[in-house]
Amino acid sequence: MSERAGIDARGERSGRRSSGRSSGRPARRPDPGRRDHIIDACLDVIAADGVAGTSHRRVAAAADVPLGSMTYHFDGMDDLLRAAFTRFSVTVATRFQQRMDAATTPAQARRAVVDLIVRDVFADRRDLVLTLELYTLAARRPDFRQLTDAWMSRSRAALGRHFTPETTRRLDALIEGLTIHRALGAGPDEASVVAAVARLTGEDGPDAPGPTGGAVPARR
Amino acid sequence: MSERAGIDARGERSGRRSSGRSSGRPARRPDPGRRDHIIDACLDVIAADGVAGTSHRRVAAAADVPLGSMTYHFDGMDDLLRAAFTRFSVTVATRFQQRMDAATTPAQARRAVVDLIVRDVFADRRDLVLTLELYTLAARRPDFRQLTDAWMSRSRAALGRHFTPETTRRLDALIEGLTIHRALGAGPDEASVVAAVARLTGEDGPDAPGPTGGAVPARR
Repeated sequence: MSERAGIDARGERSGRRSSGRSSGRPARRPDPGRRDHIIDACLDVIAADGVAGTSHRRVAAAADVPLGSMTYHFDGMDDLLRAAFTRFSVTVATRFQQRMDAATTPAQARRAVVDLIVRDVFADRRDLVLTLELYTLAARRPDFRQLTDAWMSRSRAALGRHFTPETTRRLDALIEGLTIHRALGAGPDEASVVAAVARLTGEDGPDAPGPTGGAVPARR
Repeated sequence: MSERAGIDARGERSGRRSSGRSSGRPARRPDPGRRDHIIDACLDVIAADGVAGTSHRRVAAAADVPLGSMTYHFDGMDDLLRAAFTRFSVTVATRFQQRMDAATTPAQARRAVVDLIVRDVFADRRDLVLTLELYTLAARRPDFRQLTDAWMSRSRAALGRHFTPETTRRLDALIEGLTIHRALGAGPDEASVVAAVARLTGEDGPDAPGPTGGAVPARR
């Protein structure tokens, strides 16, 4: 760490040279990609050590940038955390939205929800950890809840293109719960997820209690 | 902290006197309530600072016990975390089970599920934080998943007294998701929760798609 503190001072000087700090415009800096790079490194550190274990020093080390870069690009830890979790949640929400937008029929929309549950999120344990870290942060500190609000709003908008508002909220909760349970190794298999989504969307699954619109539709 | 280190050495000596450490029986110690007290303090520290911010030193300070008590009663941080999260999850699971066990009719069971979602968990932000901390820990470290497994098994057993295995898994996921969304301020109101539970259990809600007791049985 001490040799990093040396690089540090140099980095800070080179940063300040463009007077970017006082104008609050990191883009003026000679290395505009550095801010992005720090944000990515921050997510790596959060995934490994948790929000509580994330410090400017650790992130600078992970990003291999001088500590001065941190203070140059971010107004403290909250600013960095907000940037990191914004990037993460926007990435996941975009994937979610693309999956839902690709569906053009109700059956495809239901299938997309199943795929979200059994593939998109479950596929990557890092995503689960980062999601839980963000939720924990938002649970502790309501000022971070704008991130989870924005994320959930976007997911619901994507679902809402295919389902009623009530169904959308239920699906959103089901996706949340099933994803977590599956990621922790306690969730149902894919067939059960298909049936659960069918049930919640009013589509007859193999164990649905009644017909959707009179006669039992063809689906399974 | 340094004065604590002084008390510390004394505490450790008085602990060792009973040779409790070598036998692995903390109960032999003069102060048998101390272990319990440390576990409670550990949960407080986790709730405030997260697992990553939890150390022997912080827990000892929170419990106001000598640091030596920590090593006397626990074989390292993992042992303490396991004891703390076991206590927490057993407490929540017991509350969950009592709520479900009190129901004697299907309608009461559905109402109990609604109450779990809108009262029991949401009522206490500390519980949410501790739950998310445990999930995050289990996501990072599969050796902690026996705790989440045991917890989820117990919840499911409680639900399983009233619902089919498929419905139980869905309800379990719905409870998880709705609880988190509500706790983060993005969940539906009570009426929507009632309708969601009704839908998932095959009971007609105001917007359920079909009859409960028509041609198709409510349960598989």
